[in-house]
Amino acid sequence: MDKLRAKLHVKHELGRALLAEFTGTFLLLLVLNSVVAQAVLPKNKGVLGNETIGVNIGIGIAIWFGVAISARLSGGHINPAVSAMFALFGQLSPVRFLLYFVVQLLGALFGSAVAYAVYQDAIFGFDGGNHQIVGNSATAGIFASYPAVPIGLFNGFLNQMVATAVFCFLIAHITDKRNAYPSWVQPVLIGVTFVGIGTAFAYNDGYPCNPARDLGPRLFTFIWGYGGEVFSHRTWSWVPVIAPLVGGILGGLLYQLLIGFHTPQDVEEKYVVLTGNQELKPLTSKDPEESAQA
Amino acid sequence: MDKLRAKLHVKHELGRALLAEFTGTFLLLLVLNSVVAQAVLPKNKGVLGNETIGVNIGIGIAIWFGVAISARLSGGHINPAVSAMFALFGQLSPVRFLLYFVVQLLGALFGSAVAYAVYQDAIFGFDGGNHQIVGNSATAGIFASYPAVPIGLFNGFLNQMVATAVFCFLIAHITDKRNAYPSWVQPVLIGVTFVGIGTAFAYNDGYPCNPARDLGPRLFTFIWGYGGEVFSHRTWSWVPVIAPLVGGILGGLLYQLLIGFHTPQDVEEKYVVLTGNQELKPLTSKDPEESAQA
Amino acid sequence: MDKLRAKLHVKHELGRALLAEFTGTFLLLLVLNSVVAQAVLPKNKGVLGNETIGVNIGIGIAIWFGVAISARLSGGHINPAVSAMFALFGQLSPVRFLLYFVVQLLGALFGSAVAYAVYQDAIFGFDGGNHQIVGNSATAGIFASYPAVPIGLFNGFLNQMVATAVFCFLIAHITDKRNAYPSWVQPVLIGVTFVGIGTAFAYNDGYPCNPARDLGPRLFTFIWGYGGEVFSHRTWSWVPVIAPLVGGILGGLLYQLLIGFHTPQDVEEKYVVLTGNQELKPLTSKDPEESAQA
Amino acid sequence: MDKLRAKLHVKHELGRALLAEFTGTFLLLLVLNSVVAQAVLPKNKGVLGNETIGVNIGIGIAIWFGVAISARLSGGHINPAVSAMFALFGQLSPVRFLLYFVVQLLGALFGSAVAYAVYQDAIFGFDGGNHQIVGNSATAGIFASYPAVPIGLFNGFLNQMVATAVFCFLIAHITDKRNAYPSWVQPVLIGVTFVGIGTAFAYNDGYPCNPARDLGPRLFTFIWGYGGEVFSHRTWSWVPVIAPLVGGILGGLLYQLLIGFHTPQDVEEKYVVLTGNQELKPLTSKDPEESAQA
Repeated sequence: MDKLRAKLHVKHELGRALLAEFTGTFLLLLVLNSVVAQAVLPKNKGVLGNETIGVNIGIGIAIWFGVAISARLSGGHINPAVSAMFALFGQLSPVRFLLYFVVQLLGALFGSAVAYAVYQDAIFGFDGGNHQIVGNSATAGIFASYPAVPIGLFNGFLNQMVATAVFCFLIAHITDKRNAYPSWVQPVLIGVTFVGIGTAFAYNDGYPCNPARDLGPRLFTFIWGYGGEVFSHRTWSWVPVIAPLVGGILGGLLYQLLIGFHTPQDVEEKYVVLTGNQELKPLTSKDPEESAQA
Repeated sequence: MDKLRAKLHVKHELGRALLAEFTGTFLLLLVLNSVVAQAVLPKNKGVLGNETIGVNIGIGIAIWFGVAISARLSGGHINPAVSAMFALFGQLSPVRFLLYFVVQLLGALFGSAVAYAVYQDAIFGFDGGNHQIVGNSATAGIFASYPAVPIGLFNGFLNQMVATAVFCFLIAHITDKRNAYPSWVQPVLIGVTFVGIGTAFAYNDGYPCNPARDLGPRLFTFIWGYGGEVFSHRTWSWVPVIAPLVGGILGGLLYQLLIGFHTPQDVEEKYVVLTGNQELKPLTSKDPEESAQA
Repeated sequence: MDKLRAKLHVKHELGRALLAEFTGTFLLLLVLNSVVAQAVLPKNKGVLGNETIGVNIGIGIAIWFGVAISARLSGGHINPAVSAMFALFGQLSPVRFLLYFVVQLLGALFGSAVAYAVYQDAIFGFDGGNHQIVGNSATAGIFASYPAVPIGLFNGFLNQMVATAVFCFLIAHITDKRNAYPSWVQPVLIGVTFVGIGTAFAYNDGYPCNPARDLGPRLFTFIWGYGGEVFSHRTWSWVPVIAPLVGGILGGLLYQLLIGFHTPQDVEEKYVVLTGNQELKPLTSKDPEESAQA
Repeated sequence: MDKLRAKLHVKHELGRALLAEFTGTFLLLLVLNSVVAQAVLPKNKGVLGNETIGVNIGIGIAIWFGVAISARLSGGHINPAVSAMFALFGQLSPVRFLLYFVVQLLGALFGSAVAYAVYQDAIFGFDGGNHQIVGNSATAGIFASYPAVPIGLFNGFLNQMVATAVFCFLIAHITDKRNAYPSWVQPVLIGVTFVGIGTAFAYNDGYPCNPARDLGPRLFTFIWGYGGEVFSHRTWSWVPVIAPLVGGILGGLLYQLLIGFHTPQDVEEKYVVLTGNQELKPLTSKDPEESAQA
């Protein structure tokens, strides 16, 4: 293994980062699309078909997978909306943002293809090989988002924008170094955040909240026999690309305006939670702050 | 960003705290009301309509969102019942309590409005624009609590009071500095606590356990076409305001009487869990207490 | 508050411990019985009636509540089966074990009474005031365990014994100081353990796994109008008292025989997980063990 | 207890490791098979029959049980596919791999037997003693995996291989010492990983992802009256033995090729998460890295 390592080690930092973003997004889409397939394909849930909460938890874990494995090499964005927020914060150049977007999209495309392969027999059992976008045997919704019946374009856009803004607001909080979240905890809690997004903002039109996560599998279904309607259906397909980008930037801005700009600049590991922040009578003769952090 | 920060930074501590309480409660209600909408609006659950456990987990995560992002600036109450408990503990002046209450209420009102906007098409698809409080197409329950059919006023009050007392008992334990919970863990476990409250005390009349969380969205529905019955229905609307305040103070008092007053005053990070607290034979030549904390 | 504290502080260690065990078991039964009520009483689940997973998670959180708040004062047993295991380990005298049992039972009795009060209107709406043990409107199962139809006495005993043995095996592992779990984590993971027990061993006859948790509420239902059949029904009622005690001791013994006796005696915070425990080539020039623990 | 310890302590490291692997796999199968039984046997879910998410969470917790209790003595594999990956990484000799496989298989066999005993009355109530592999009263699926109707052999193999590859990819990440996950966290997150696998890759043919976990209980059902068809049914039984081994090695290889080989060799506890990894303006005059880790 050591010789292999010496041979294959990527020395260029950007190369490593792009490889990690590709891998993280690939893993995200492989797992995420499979989670949705396991909810859509069972005619009845039986012992192993996902309920809604299973979709939410499974996708949250898929986010954790992707962010955790790529965090150290690329920052663990696996989402152009997140990259856009960090670009806004000045931590990502425009060129790097574009490169990230491209490999995230490629990772999403290939991850979706493998998820399709894993579920191909079940998909053919479900729709008889007639891949459709709407109707009782529609399977396109396994891969990309389509709006539910009564949802208009404006409402759909608003939903994606708000959901992504909440997601990125929380990411900005969790990754703010002044809040001192341990490194291993950050990807876990970003996954938990997305479980919350899924329980709150999924009903209208799904909750991609990630341009690569929606466009990548949509491209795959376009290539793989679902036809051009995957792009034209209800003139919807641009919404889950544009709205999350707007939402990501909005969420990051709101975080700074409402919280970040007013947070003291030091890394304060031991701030007082859930009090009025007033002077507290010391509880002990030794300084409790000294040992308050486990 | 740095220039923006310099310009917009709020210097006054109370101003920062009020902004944070507003933001935290706004975020809580935006997510929480959306979670309930996603359970009420689907005619059948499908892939993305919340089951009960999804409501419980989603609301728990919403609590975590609100507490986590505001903890450092305001103490992260986002709930007048919690503020009342900390006022009882002498960590919040009466004036500050009142100011907190006002901004919490405003945050709840505006957060509910955005949740309504996100679900407006689905709500109109569900009730045809005829916003109702009871019946098959009632949607008022998305925003505020109404008692289930056989529950009397006394039982309803008791339920809100007990649920909030348990919630605040646990908050008092988690935020007790002598117990040395890490800062980032406290908001997470307060969210988990509320998941537990939701699985135990929701059936009778919902589980607001938070005057701002109930009164804010109730005001919104009053303004937004649900009519005066949102306040007059079964003379209920004062209960989820008063009962949680009583419950919060009761929970804090019981914590002190039963646990807090008897807990040693030092910050003991390494107390022995789950033994008889008797003298233990040392397990090792080096003091195990010395390295027992990860 | 400080004067109150000075006045009410319990100075005797055993007194504090008994108060804490009472409080923890009270809280456990208040929440736990309410969780089951919220699953049994709804004619259909609606938005707020618990599914099975909600029962499992709610009860796990109730365990965490009770253990966490009492851990520092009494060791956080809140379960005679757990106390029996620690007595076996020599960390609890027989007298202390008996005193713990008594206050645990009292806490369970009173906690059940409050849970009944919280759900009284709903219970009367469900059974019309005719409190029954079996049948469509039975509500006794909210409080104590009764075996499902095809389960014999031997199988029922085995189920309670095995479930409690697994539970206590894990508690022995988690509280083993040599494994260096942080103090705040231990009650959380004991709660998670019980979620696992609930998904595995509940179907036959519920999963009390705790003599006080079953006998306390059974006494309450006996006193409160369910009649003597709560004790005589299928000669069952002694099983969830005796079987968990046997199981607790068995679980503790098996832990020591299979794992504990063979674990090195030092507190090893940085042991290598998931490798063959063979010599590892150092990954870095500085000793990785030195900084491996976050 | 101390005398007992002195007497029974296993001194040989390999002996301890094999005992731990046996115990961990025994515990895994006891809990895991019971979790599935609790989903299969209830004619309707009632209060205590598992939904799909309950199966996923219960099995995730069972994994945590087995890994956590054996981690320190054997490395906590409890899965030949995991052992194969660590053998590939040079941390396990071929002989040790084979010995691990044997005790893992034995642990799985005996754990399944105890699970059967715990559910025997319910199984006889369900199938009248006529133990079957397919049909409405089939119970063989409680113990080992059988493919769902439309799934071909190739797709079934692919599913097991991909699922195990994702599982082992994550295990390789979590146990990579350079990522500095705390010891107690690693088994927990390995359990969470498997919850994710269960929500994504279970529908086609279950998700053993572990040759011992499938072959052990299959042997038990063969011995215990389910007949030779447990091996011959659809020529399936070799798949969940071979495919996970291939998947484990594949997952480990992909981890190294895509992430591991490119990760800096030092144990970096404080790497920057979720940024572009570019130079950050220091947020504070003291070095934030110095205190960033809780």
